[in-house]
Amino acid sequence: MEERFALFGDIIHSERDRTFKEFRDSYLMIRNGRVEKITKERPEGVEVHDYRGMLIIPGLIDMHLHAPQYQYAGLFMDEELLDWLNHHTFPEEGKYADIEYAERAYGIFTEDIVKSETTRFSLFATIHEDASLLLARMLEDSGLAGYIGKVNMDRNSPDYLKEDTSESIRRTLSFIEEMKDFKNVMPIITPRFIPSCSNRLLEALSNISREMHIPVQSHLDENLSEIEWVRELVPESRNYADAYAHFHLLGEEKTIMAHVVWPGEDEYPLLKNKNVFVAHSPSSNSNLSSGIAPVRKMLEAGINIGLATDLAGGSSMSMLKMLTHAIEVSKLYYRLKDESAQPLTFREAFYIATRMAGTFFGKVGAFDEDFDADVIVLDTSSIHTTLYDELSLSERLELYSYRASGRPVKAKFVKGRKVL
Amino acid sequence: MEERFALFGDIIHSERDRTFKEFRDSYLMIRNGRVEKITKERPEGVEVHDYRGMLIIPGLIDMHLHAPQYQYAGLFMDEELLDWLNHHTFPEEGKYADIEYAERAYGIFTEDIVKSETTRFSLFATIHEDASLLLARMLEDSGLAGYIGKVNMDRNSPDYLKEDTSESIRRTLSFIEEMKDFKNVMPIITPRFIPSCSNRLLEALSNISREMHIPVQSHLDENLSEIEWVRELVPESRNYADAYAHFHLLGEEKTIMAHVVWPGEDEYPLLKNKNVFVAHSPSSNSNLSSGIAPVRKMLEAGINIGLATDLAGGSSMSMLKMLTHAIEVSKLYYRLKDESAQPLTFREAFYIATRMAGTFFGKVGAFDEDFDADVIVLDTSSIHTTLYDELSLSERLELYSYRASGRPVKAKFVKGRKVL
Repeated sequence: MEERFALFGDIIHSERDRTFKEFRDSYLMIRNGRVEKITKERPEGVEVHDYRGMLIIPGLIDMHLHAPQYQYAGLFMDEELLDWLNHHTFPEEGKYADIEYAERAYGIFTEDIVKSETTRFSLFATIHEDASLLLARMLEDSGLAGYIGKVNMDRNSPDYLKEDTSESIRRTLSFIEEMKDFKNVMPIITPRFIPSCSNRLLEALSNISREMHIPVQSHLDENLSEIEWVRELVPESRNYADAYAHFHLLGEEKTIMAHVVWPGEDEYPLLKNKNVFVAHSPSSNSNLSSGIAPVRKMLEAGINIGLATDLAGGSSMSMLKMLTHAIEVSKLYYRLKDESAQPLTFREAFYIATRMAGTFFGKVGAFDEDFDADVIVLDTSSIHTTLYDELSLSERLELYSYRASGRPVKAKFVKGRKVL
Repeated sequence: MEERFALFGDIIHSERDRTFKEFRDSYLMIRNGRVEKITKERPEGVEVHDYRGMLIIPGLIDMHLHAPQYQYAGLFMDEELLDWLNHHTFPEEGKYADIEYAERAYGIFTEDIVKSETTRFSLFATIHEDASLLLARMLEDSGLAGYIGKVNMDRNSPDYLKEDTSESIRRTLSFIEEMKDFKNVMPIITPRFIPSCSNRLLEALSNISREMHIPVQSHLDENLSEIEWVRELVPESRNYADAYAHFHLLGEEKTIMAHVVWPGEDEYPLLKNKNVFVAHSPSSNSNLSSGIAPVRKMLEAGINIGLATDLAGGSSMSMLKMLTHAIEVSKLYYRLKDESAQPLTFREAFYIATRMAGTFFGKVGAFDEDFDADVIVLDTSSIHTTLYDELSLSERLELYSYRASGRPVKAKFVKGRKVL
């Protein structure tokens, strides 16, 4: 049975050439969960959701976040990565052994992400199979879409977060099996990072990924101390990215690597050739004193990039805020590190956070015909300025991103289903 | 006639040693507009405003912002300072020759700043005497307090913003005269910056400031091209700060210099010895690709610092957001420029934005006995986290700053008067 409806309002998305395309007072036609077309003519015989005067844009894609860290997002921001992990992250993640705690905390997380600008995600849960499945179920029920990873850790971790290697493998298989009937939320192989996974575990995870065609996510080149540690742990690899490649965990299946703040020159071609998606996390990289990722240089090298909140290294769940933050740090990189690396423009940052990141998920991130109908609606009229009536739609989007991001969105659709 | 009342709730402010002092479920007693004491005992015979469960903190101080630029805050962020001034700032400021436009735009500005976290400010208006007086009157009527400058510009400016030198001086005197009966909002001498003021104008402004004991505000060391330009314009000065000193505009009266992103080694002692307040504007300095001010080094040199939104280089009116932004960029400065410059901690940033900046205004920025009762009330309970009940007051303040800053405050008092 065919399901058709339309959204009316001011529609804007990114074209393939990274420019904006704007449709004022138009109808976004949706058929069976996919975009049919954008038209000025009022369609007959279909329901129209009237968002007159509001902005209708593709849902934002959060390429990397840690759901169990949300409870302390915006706290304890005076420490660097490795201390912060030991003092705050690991103790908090340990609590998810308790399914009642997980239910309460993941309930808050799910409620908030539904209201946020995010429609798709790739997230880390914890090592705990039951809590991770609970979160997967909550997110599946919410109507959002994306990937969720049960985290694997079997070394260099506190006792309460260290798995037995065989147990870690078994639980990963069981987690994947339990999700086999899910429609929107899919499993992703999630070794935390090289330091917390033994060689045997990394090899087993790689085998699971390749045999079952399940994508992979992990962390790469976030912090200088971390990079040095990986060099000691995998001396046979040429660099950190190569350490993942060594274990067949880099680009054998679709792969997301979070951060990539300090890529070596020889890592650029590796990331490009393996078709890796870099999850650029500007807020987190500032908050944890990690540095600024060379986004312009990675773009020029042809590497895929998405933006990410990296909760709770990042303190906000707002992807539009992340977009402005990516622009800000690219300007500081340009000024302080390399004047040949031009800052990101607003339209580029939006393109990255929607259409470019969307290719990881399929036909996602824009309003081309046959793309998944992932849509959010923003009420920009709540921002008072004398200039409002003169603004183009992209200027209204920029205004909202800088001044109103983080507010609950007005409406949200994922694969054509209204989730808010 | 004595006016006494109390605010009840969770009270927190910065001590002189830069640590937080916390008073849970306590009464902030206010007498004749000033802080009397903080006590656990319910006072008798006075009105109590009940803010149980909310945070009661000193109002934030915005040391530098441009009120006429508010209408385009969050727009046009893809350009650097000098282009941005010519393409957007000057044309917009030109509109304030029209008093009806000024009334509409300053009406929006005043309405929004009343709801913001700011209680005190030092702001730039435009060159237009009538519009500037209108804004001064609106702010005086709102109950907020601070300094407002009619801007002076008589060279290197577009025709519609270039004053005749004598006219500029005359209007400045008239602006000051018109404000003589104001209680909360005071005039401040405001040469835009060296490039836009002739020597004769700078000398005249300095005379007015010194004869009438009126403070001074301007811009300093924001952008490398600007610094180079000043070097050409005032070749007899040793550096940009010295160019102001050359015209007796640096610290003869109380002085605020905005930005100071690129101070030379010989400018540190000058700023310190002249008791200049630096208005650190982290968002603006990122947005306009200016760089990162060396806040730690200025603090260690004993220079006074306040935080500033610098609307509309900065895109947000939220001073708590600015506080987190100051911390973020201090971490990037530490990582990318100078590892001896330790990042700002949350408690330091709060201290700077309240107690340290407050000394510019008198006994302002903390809840010591006899300080002006500038208070804002924050509803932190709207942030849902499982950790909420375990948090100290400073942690609740940090959580709010990172996750909820920019929302309208729950209540606001300036000099003991309820303004929201």
